[in-house]
Amino acid sequence: MFAELITIGDELLIGQVVDTNSAWMGRELNNIGIEVLRIVSVRDREEEILEAIDNAMKRVNIVLVTGGLGPTKDDITKQTLCKYFNTELIFSEEVFENVKRVLAGKIPMNKLNKGQAMVPKNCTVINNPVGSASVSWFERDGKVLVSMPGVPQEMTTVMAESVLPKLHERFQTDVIMHQTFLVQHYPESVLAEKLEAWEVALPDCIKLAYLPKLGIIRMRLTGRGHDRKEVETLLNREKAKLETILGEDIFSEEDTPLEVIIGELLKKRKLTVSTAESCTGGSIAERLTSIAGSSEYFKGSIVAYSNEVKKDLLYVSSETLEKYGAVSEETVIEMVKGAMKALKTDCAVATSGIAGPGGGTPEKPVGTVWIAAGYKNEIRTYKQETNRGRAMNIERAGNNALLMLRDLLK
Amino acid sequence: MFAELITIGDELLIGQVVDTNSAWMGRELNNIGIEVLRIVSVRDREEEILEAIDNAMKRVNIVLVTGGLGPTKDDITKQTLCKYFNTELIFSEEVFENVKRVLAGKIPMNKLNKGQAMVPKNCTVINNPVGSASVSWFERDGKVLVSMPGVPQEMTTVMAESVLPKLHERFQTDVIMHQTFLVQHYPESVLAEKLEAWEVALPDCIKLAYLPKLGIIRMRLTGRGHDRKEVETLLNREKAKLETILGEDIFSEEDTPLEVIIGELLKKRKLTVSTAESCTGGSIAERLTSIAGSSEYFKGSIVAYSNEVKKDLLYVSSETLEKYGAVSEETVIEMVKGAMKALKTDCAVATSGIAGPGGGTPEKPVGTVWIAAGYKNEIRTYKQETNRGRAMNIERAGNNALLMLRDLLK
Repeated sequence: MFAELITIGDELLIGQVVDTNSAWMGRELNNIGIEVLRIVSVRDREEEILEAIDNAMKRVNIVLVTGGLGPTKDDITKQTLCKYFNTELIFSEEVFENVKRVLAGKIPMNKLNKGQAMVPKNCTVINNPVGSASVSWFERDGKVLVSMPGVPQEMTTVMAESVLPKLHERFQTDVIMHQTFLVQHYPESVLAEKLEAWEVALPDCIKLAYLPKLGIIRMRLTGRGHDRKEVETLLNREKAKLETILGEDIFSEEDTPLEVIIGELLKKRKLTVSTAESCTGGSIAERLTSIAGSSEYFKGSIVAYSNEVKKDLLYVSSETLEKYGAVSEETVIEMVKGAMKALKTDCAVATSGIAGPGGGTPEKPVGTVWIAAGYKNEIRTYKQETNRGRAMNIERAGNNALLMLRDLLK
Repeated sequence: MFAELITIGDELLIGQVVDTNSAWMGRELNNIGIEVLRIVSVRDREEEILEAIDNAMKRVNIVLVTGGLGPTKDDITKQTLCKYFNTELIFSEEVFENVKRVLAGKIPMNKLNKGQAMVPKNCTVINNPVGSASVSWFERDGKVLVSMPGVPQEMTTVMAESVLPKLHERFQTDVIMHQTFLVQHYPESVLAEKLEAWEVALPDCIKLAYLPKLGIIRMRLTGRGHDRKEVETLLNREKAKLETILGEDIFSEEDTPLEVIIGELLKKRKLTVSTAESCTGGSIAERLTSIAGSSEYFKGSIVAYSNEVKKDLLYVSSETLEKYGAVSEETVIEMVKGAMKALKTDCAVATSGIAGPGGGTPEKPVGTVWIAAGYKNEIRTYKQETNRGRAMNIERAGNNALLMLRDLLK
């Protein structure tokens, strides 16, 4: 089953906006067994839109169109679709109620917004719960064209809630099920070797994908088939095998950010956390506090970029700094202890390293980061090596610090 | 002058990769007066690539193709172009030298890499200084097709260094010049009103664009014409007028991140900085330290999420917290003073607010953030209002804090 995506809007062609919708749609369509054959972006011009639609409708059974549904004059998708499907716009009381509901209290209703309640006569209108642009589902000669808003939040909501289930039902595509695993403690090549025998023996309808990201390996098992029950059984069987092989190294079976996993763990255990950051510069605190409700377990951080701050606020001794240097196991141990003491928390993480590009030495090259995680009297340390550039060195150190803390609390 | 972009690769259609190349190319082509009419993404299949190329060559004078040039079997762009242009692949000693140079020391040379030195016979080969895939420039009937690698870093390098200048020369397109301004202190609508008379009187060949982002307004003047000298003169004239109207509210005439602007200012003045962050959770420290060499002026931060930390480490008095609350002008004043004292810096910024989604009250609704900037004994405060969601409330508070610090140091 093939689909084609058409994205409409001058902003895409002049490069003001990156088209992130198409990749999202490609992934989601794949999940229900629909393959995207082609993505076309065109300007807000009637003849160009008509040509793209006509070509797509000739080639595939499913055409998904996004964009050009705003209330202003330059948006002409709706009118153009009427022309293509030989119909006209009519006023929909139901859509008008939705427009009023969505705009309520935000902006005063004007003539342009009323125009958003005009919908093509011979289509099925799908409700857009998060926006004022309407969604139209056209059918002709067994083929389907759906027109959706280009605003990513609106498109993804409408796709997930209505369009994908309807397409799945209408075209009776394969069942596709996914299971994600987040794995730690392995470089990708070592993990792949460990899993080789299992991977080779996977049934044909189950595929494995590796998606590594800085200290964490995401793995995705995808099962595909006609019968949901059957796919589920097979997938669960392989999942169980994988859990036996990797045990505790699987730290999540959902694609959840580390800061959420840590937050849940701390809440459950009723523990508080703090950070003492040198090279990560506050980015671990920033990640922890990006989660709503984090004030329940996060108390604060000391970003100790200078040695003076390490001494004054984290009680790192001058002796340690002189003898071992700021980037050392001894220093991060004192930092993590200092954080727990100064910020009065049950646990903490600390980092000190050379993020680069400058500051490296032969003994401590750029990319060297010492990391510590502490919980009461227990402290673990890790030396992160190899340079991947300033931003990635910092992000990877954050991942490792949070993974170490999780290990410690388990 | 019109162009069409064709991006090739299964990874785009299954949504594994977001196509960021096209937006970049759209912007750069616009800059030299070439308009992108259409962007098409197709799979690595000969017939689909041929169809896309043939359609594009019929429609426009310039066709830019990216992707499908890797050494593996699934990449077939080169062979397909040979078919379209009725030619064959030949070995290029020059390209082979480049492949050897690029791969030197990274991976051992194998048969597949040697294949990368095979180039279409009747094209002009353009050097790729940062990768092993070659760039081919074809001409036919006064039309140009250029095939480039899909790796963004390689594509942008090759475009900027060779393809854009060659296209500009070959098609004698208009000269397009840009001037960016970063403006503070204005909501967009107020700024637009203030600039209305000037904007209306702009010569036809100069266009103004507003690109607002959370507390900062980016403005771009674009001049276009046949003669570089003339465009430059006109653009400079309007630039001078704008500088007269807005004065110090223009805080940069390059599109530079705020943390870089602050860093340069601190270095020049030989000053040190720290932050005391509640609702921004370390994100201002994270931004300041994302800049290489920031240890020269950034000493550290105290992320004081809990009131206890505000009291213990930033010397905020219990009385102030009780009487005015943590989200108050009084508290951020004490926090910014506390940061300068505890971290021994010349200046500092402080934030305390309700990032949301929870925690709001009728008097202090979600989105309320008090911000302070201090330099020695001088302290300025600002109350940020209106809720734009947790992430944007935090980012906007960071922007405002850094803008206030800049104002203070000027």
